[in-house]
Amino acid sequence: MKFLKSVKKFYFHYPFPVTVVGAKHGDKINFMSAAWHAQFSFDPPLYGVLISPKRFTHDLIKKSSAFSLNFLDSSKFRIVHLMGRISGRDVDKVGELNLKVFIGKELEVPILSESYAAYECELFDEKKYGDHTLFVGKIVGIHYDEELFNEKYQPDITKIIPTLYLGSNVYPMFELREIVELEG
Amino acid sequence: MKFLKSVKKFYFHYPFPVTVVGAKHGDKINFMSAAWHAQFSFDPPLYGVLISPKRFTHDLIKKSSAFSLNFLDSSKFRIVHLMGRISGRDVDKVGELNLKVFIGKELEVPILSESYAAYECELFDEKKYGDHTLFVGKIVGIHYDEELFNEKYQPDITKIIPTLYLGSNVYPMFELREIVELEG
Repeated sequence: MKFLKSVKKFYFHYPFPVTVVGAKHGDKINFMSAAWHAQFSFDPPLYGVLISPKRFTHDLIKKSSAFSLNFLDSSKFRIVHLMGRISGRDVDKVGELNLKVFIGKELEVPILSESYAAYECELFDEKKYGDHTLFVGKIVGIHYDEELFNEKYQPDITKIIPTLYLGSNVYPMFELREIVELEG
Repeated sequence: MKFLKSVKKFYFHYPFPVTVVGAKHGDKINFMSAAWHAQFSFDPPLYGVLISPKRFTHDLIKKSSAFSLNFLDSSKFRIVHLMGRISGRDVDKVGELNLKVFIGKELEVPILSESYAAYECELFDEKKYGDHTLFVGKIVGIHYDEELFNEKYQPDITKIIPTLYLGSNVYPMFELREIVELEG
C-alpha cells in the first residue's frame, strides 16, 4: 500500500451515486448534480448534501429553505452531467435542457419528471465545512415510480441502475450480474 | 409517480457504496460497515459518516477522536456484510473474521489490509442528527494500492467495483459495460 499525507483532489472512494439537487426561489428554478450526499437519519428522515457556496443552487436553498433530491437512471447520465457543468446564473437549465418539471406537494421545490424517485426536503440544519456547505433536509414527501420499487421501497435493480460518477467527468456504466441476499 | 408523505424505512436512493469504519481505543479494535457517508470538503479534506449511538464503534470514536474509512472491492461483500451484522461488544471481529489489520501512520486507527484504499481521519466535528451521529473527520493520511489508481487518484474501474448495498441485506453485483468520459 502506498501512503499519501494529503492531496488536493482525490477520488479514492469513487464511483459514487449522483443526486440532482433542485431549488426554487420566486420564479428562479435551478438543478445541479452532486456526488457528496448521504442519508443522516431514519427518524426523523434526514438527508444531507454538500454544496459549494459558489453554486447558484446554494443561493436558492439559502433563500427558500427547501430543496429536492432527484435520482435518475444511469441511462440519463448526460443530463445529470450537464446539470453539473453549466451554471443556473447564466442559463435557464430547465428551458435549455428541455426538462419536464413539477412542483412538490408539500414544498415549493422543483422536481424532475424523469426521476425514478425524488425527495422533498425542508431545510433542517446547515453548516459550513471547509469549501462546502452541508445542507441537511427533513424529507417531508417522497415521489417514486411504483413499478420500479418493491414493498420495502428498494429499487428493482434489474430495471434501475443509479448514475454513478467516477470524478473528473468520467461515468462508468454497469450492468447487473447477480443479486445476492444474505442473512440478516 | 406515486407520493408518500413519510415512511419509516426506505431505500429509494440505494444502492449506495459501503465503507467500513474502523476505530481503536486502548486494546479494543472494531470495524463496522456503513452506507451513510460522503465527502464534505476538498480543502481541508473532510469526510462525514453517520453512525448509530447504539454501535460499539460509536463509543470507540468518541473515546479516541479518530477513525478510519476502508473501501473494499465488491468481491469482498461477505466480509463487509458480517461487519455490519455482528457487534464488536460481543465478538472480537478481527479475530473472528481472521482480518489482517495494520495501524495508521498518522493516527492510532486500525486499517484493513484487504482495502484498496483507506483514509485516516482525525475527528473534526460531531453532531447528533435524529437516530444517528454525524462524525466528520479530517483526512490526514491516505493508503492505497497504487496499481489500482491512475494519476488523478481515480480507481481503475476495470479492476475495482466498490461494494454496493441495496438495503435489507441485499447486495447487487455489477460488471462494467463501458466507461464514458464527457467534456468538462
